[in-house]
Amino acid sequence: MHILVTNDDGVTAPGLLALAQAVQPLGKVSILAPDRNWSASGHVRTIDRPLRVKTITLPGGLVANACDGAPSDCVALANAGFFDEKVDMVVSGINTSGNLGHDVTYSGTVTAAMEAAIWGIPALAFSLESAENNTPSDYSTAGIIAGRVTEAAIRYGISPHLLLNVNIPDLPLDQIKGIQATRMGLRVYHDKLDKREDPRGKPYYWAIGSLPTGIPERGTDIGSLAEGYVSVTPLQLDLTAYHFLPELNTWEWKE
Amino acid sequence: MHILVTNDDGVTAPGLLALAQAVQPLGKVSILAPDRNWSASGHVRTIDRPLRVKTITLPGGLVANACDGAPSDCVALANAGFFDEKVDMVVSGINTSGNLGHDVTYSGTVTAAMEAAIWGIPALAFSLESAENNTPSDYSTAGIIAGRVTEAAIRYGISPHLLLNVNIPDLPLDQIKGIQATRMGLRVYHDKLDKREDPRGKPYYWAIGSLPTGIPERGTDIGSLAEGYVSVTPLQLDLTAYHFLPELNTWEWKE
Repeated sequence: MHILVTNDDGVTAPGLLALAQAVQPLGKVSILAPDRNWSASGHVRTIDRPLRVKTITLPGGLVANACDGAPSDCVALANAGFFDEKVDMVVSGINTSGNLGHDVTYSGTVTAAMEAAIWGIPALAFSLESAENNTPSDYSTAGIIAGRVTEAAIRYGISPHLLLNVNIPDLPLDQIKGIQATRMGLRVYHDKLDKREDPRGKPYYWAIGSLPTGIPERGTDIGSLAEGYVSVTPLQLDLTAYHFLPELNTWEWKE
Repeated sequence: MHILVTNDDGVTAPGLLALAQAVQPLGKVSILAPDRNWSASGHVRTIDRPLRVKTITLPGGLVANACDGAPSDCVALANAGFFDEKVDMVVSGINTSGNLGHDVTYSGTVTAAMEAAIWGIPALAFSLESAENNTPSDYSTAGIIAGRVTEAAIRYGISPHLLLNVNIPDLPLDQIKGIQATRMGLRVYHDKLDKREDPRGKPYYWAIGSLPTGIPERGTDIGSLAEGYVSVTPLQLDLTAYHFLPELNTWEWKE
């Protein structure tokens, strides 16, 4: 089992080290991750320039490859043959904040796993949902959970072209109530327009408000986290709204 | 009906002008689009700097707003109140190449519509699937089709949090066989690792191969396009792989 570890916070982020250490007992681990932070970067592939990769050593002696591309570039590079050995599984994270509900469409952590799923490689994305300031102090509990979920994914198998989006509450291990299979919940974003003027009187705009909240419905990722559980949401790449197809089929198109 | 026109090829792209002109008879049209090309940019939101907007005049006299952010930033800005009037519908495109199958996860054209759907605004993404060189000579037919599909979407309505992903073959109007409701097909990507050495002997990598092809299965976007139809695929934001949840619920997590 050759496991690729990547992330979107950058190769030196403490969450990546915790994840790499957690999956080390499960197989041969390779690290190929961005050399800088790509948060909120979405599903990006670099197509207009080549990629550079540097080898660095992480605290504790793990060797890692730092790439100047996006998280999905790292996954594509690895799957296209960067390492001598084929990649059997991709784990991404541990992200410094939760990737819940619609966040998954923006999240570099999740889209790295999505890129793997497109290649047919089983993939898991891990995020630590911490309090409002998004600065978890400690990844050791999240690492333990990430190891357990990855172990189960290897043991049971994930259908090809699926990925698991795992969110872990920032709680001591003995306060985490368990691990729940969930569906995607609904995020509530609070973006609003903040129009300001620069010193020369020209306008500029912030379209970002406070951090998104979520509807903590039972059975969803947001609901599970709110109750102190780890959420594991299986995601697919097929976005077709099948329930709307019959209605769409009745539409008549005017000339 | 206040219609926002945006795209990912940049505000001066001919596809945007064709789309804006096509939807003009259907309501009040506002244009807010990136000032440069954001292709393959994915679902990006700019969070670390404010956005600037300039007013420009497009050929034919249409006034447009050019923003230094990503397509999704433009949609967020518009929905957060950039215009005096609330936005009722978002149309994105017309993209210079098809957005078929898994392309939708990378596509700035589609993710702009996705951003609108997150805000609960009905949205349509339009792309012109041209021959291999991706340089359509003419957007007039695609404009006519985009107008027809948008008109129908206004007349029948789209469920909130859905978007329509429309792909138009690059054919003369009388050779287009019709408009079909489709599901997402399967793209086949041909990425491979191309390792090269720079003049100083240091390695760099291209992980991009030839253009993706698709499996032209009947009922899919790729299949419809291959037969000369326009494809209209309803997409949802809920990526949950519901069929995998029962299996995931049986997993036992080892301590």
